[in-house]
Amino acid sequence: MLKPDLEFIESAQRALDRCDTLGEISSMPGVICRTYLSTEHQACNLQVQEWMAQAGMHTWVDAAGNCCGRYSGSSLDDNASTLILGSHLDTIVNAGRYDGILGVISAIELIDMLNKKSQRLPFNIDVVGFGDEEGVRFGATLLGSRAISGTWDNNWLELSDDENISMQQALDLFHGERRDPNSAAYESEKLLAYLELHIEQGPVLQDEDIPVGIVSAIAGARRFSFEIHGMAGHAGTVPMQMRVDALSITAKIIIQIEQIALDNNFVATVGKLEVSPGAVNVIPGSCHFTLDVRSGNDDCLSDGIQKIFNMIEDHQKGMGFSFVSEEIHTASAVGCSDWIINCTKKAIEKMSLPVISLVSGAGHDAMALAEVCDVGMIFLRCKDGISHHPEEFVTRDDVAW
Amino acid sequence: MLKPDLEFIESAQRALDRCDTLGEISSMPGVICRTYLSTEHQACNLQVQEWMAQAGMHTWVDAAGNCCGRYSGSSLDDNASTLILGSHLDTIVNAGRYDGILGVISAIELIDMLNKKSQRLPFNIDVVGFGDEEGVRFGATLLGSRAISGTWDNNWLELSDDENISMQQALDLFHGERRDPNSAAYESEKLLAYLELHIEQGPVLQDEDIPVGIVSAIAGARRFSFEIHGMAGHAGTVPMQMRVDALSITAKIIIQIEQIALDNNFVATVGKLEVSPGAVNVIPGSCHFTLDVRSGNDDCLSDGIQKIFNMIEDHQKGMGFSFVSEEIHTASAVGCSDWIINCTKKAIEKMSLPVISLVSGAGHDAMALAEVCDVGMIFLRCKDGISHHPEEFVTRDDVAW
Repeated sequence: MLKPDLEFIESAQRALDRCDTLGEISSMPGVICRTYLSTEHQACNLQVQEWMAQAGMHTWVDAAGNCCGRYSGSSLDDNASTLILGSHLDTIVNAGRYDGILGVISAIELIDMLNKKSQRLPFNIDVVGFGDEEGVRFGATLLGSRAISGTWDNNWLELSDDENISMQQALDLFHGERRDPNSAAYESEKLLAYLELHIEQGPVLQDEDIPVGIVSAIAGARRFSFEIHGMAGHAGTVPMQMRVDALSITAKIIIQIEQIALDNNFVATVGKLEVSPGAVNVIPGSCHFTLDVRSGNDDCLSDGIQKIFNMIEDHQKGMGFSFVSEEIHTASAVGCSDWIINCTKKAIEKMSLPVISLVSGAGHDAMALAEVCDVGMIFLRCKDGISHHPEEFVTRDDVAW
Repeated sequence: MLKPDLEFIESAQRALDRCDTLGEISSMPGVICRTYLSTEHQACNLQVQEWMAQAGMHTWVDAAGNCCGRYSGSSLDDNASTLILGSHLDTIVNAGRYDGILGVISAIELIDMLNKKSQRLPFNIDVVGFGDEEGVRFGATLLGSRAISGTWDNNWLELSDDENISMQQALDLFHGERRDPNSAAYESEKLLAYLELHIEQGPVLQDEDIPVGIVSAIAGARRFSFEIHGMAGHAGTVPMQMRVDALSITAKIIIQIEQIALDNNFVATVGKLEVSPGAVNVIPGSCHFTLDVRSGNDDCLSDGIQKIFNMIEDHQKGMGFSFVSEEIHTASAVGCSDWIINCTKKAIEKMSLPVISLVSGAGHDAMALAEVCDVGMIFLRCKDGISHHPEEFVTRDDVAW
């Protein structure tokens, strides 16, 4: 395989250095934590605006706290169509340095290259660092991109953080004045597209030994909570044949959920399981578990969920247990636009790299933007698929591509 | 099936009434709780001694707090051989009324019948209500029967309860003077046998529609703690094929443990399971679970455990997980004596009842006595196999048999 050009390697190195710099802007010593509308959010926006300005952009912070920079098109007309590049600048608690951040920083590097060549395109390019995607402070997620896409919900203003500060109060403090987050919205007819680079947060690219992948869709996700009620009993006195062991039943269900997901090409995770009464010498009487299922195709997901419910009902016949379920979360899949996928494919082929297409299992800002314009995403290989963790890592050469 | 004689029905009714009376002697309002060396233990011993005396026995409380009554044999010689009948008078927290208690009360009813007919046997019959079997207050179990069997361990005296009162202090307070629990031991050469009636604590007799069963052995039990270490990951981004999901692996192990137990005629219970990190959108990285296995045959149990470990190691091949295990408890099986089993069998046949032989999965005072004399046990049908619970229930007619 070819090596990236030196110019790109130098730029990639600076991008990684800048990710390190932003990693220092944290509300917690030793670990990275930067939440929406915090002092660290302000400090981060200030630093990023400085880098944007150095790359020839004019910058602003919008009414929702997003950090924005514009590299005007050849017409120098602010009313020209606009391509948005970006990702988010907020982090979870004890985060890595690249999730979100790298998408903003690498977009600035791209503009810097164009600017150095005095190259202007027939449209504006706006780089946006969204103020909140993770939803750590107020629970609601994708706040920054919802504001930009004009789908901000004023009810959010009443949400409070752990210290009982409402979002409205936090916004007022952040801006030093009352500003309306809805005013951050772009006019959708002027939006050309939204493009986001993000680390994969999964192991596929590493496994295939490919630095970048094209995202074909952002998976829809549905979450359920299940309770299985069997019959508790003494571990020594109830013969195996007479048990209605809730954990044994749950184990069978978990294994079949895995098989249904494998056979039907979606991902399914039982991440939480509580056994009651949970004593070494008592047969489990009930189990409570959660199910998270995701697919780039909503119909495939609905079919899969139906198969899971049918399977549980089949198990129920003659086994003497009861179950209750509740759907606790639902989000539809978002498809990336074919023309963007094709452009990205050509660009990757031009670099003589293999082309691979992936479904993003995680949610991204592109989901919000997809409501008002075409969207596309590029995934970058990350070490061992680790994300949301200090060990999050990407290589300089991969970024250079 | 025949009905029991009226005489036995009346006696059974009184036994149940007396169980109710003892159920009122509790340290907690509304629920039954009577622990070793408590005020309630003293009150219970006083009441039971009164009933023993009414049945023609002379009574005492031994140095370990056991409530004892002797119905002397025909020789009226205190040095004659002795048959002990009994069970325990202590309870767990929120107990039923019959577990243990009924074995003591029904033995007193038996003596009362002999006494009314002025019938004396060629040996003494001692009824013992053991002061501690459940081990609720100090953790160590079978304290009363260990003292009687001469296997008391003086190290127990240093154990403390939740209020930091040592067993030595509690014994001193209970007796009002310093007494040596070791002095409660019987001379083993004078012990004819130990017989115990106990509720089944399981559903087999109810399922077979038989009021009483002969216990052939008290199961040996072994307990293990297991940790399965897989690889945590994002529920959306790691493809099913690339996961090392600790819960999925554990589910497979649980199902195979169940199958091995069924195929090899022992009971196995995974009663406790903790999933880490335990979040709805994270693939489980590790699981911690316990295993409790029991059988009347120690060799069968060792074989079964070996099969379980082999099975886990087989799963490990190529699945990329690691596991640690620790044996946390072990108790050998105790066989009941053939001559006692045969006597009991003849008595049951005489009543024209079907004969059924059971292994006791739970531990009993007979385990301690088995170290110094022949032991036998009779199980009484209990409703739905429920024990250690306020809903514990036996019928008058079953007790009458």
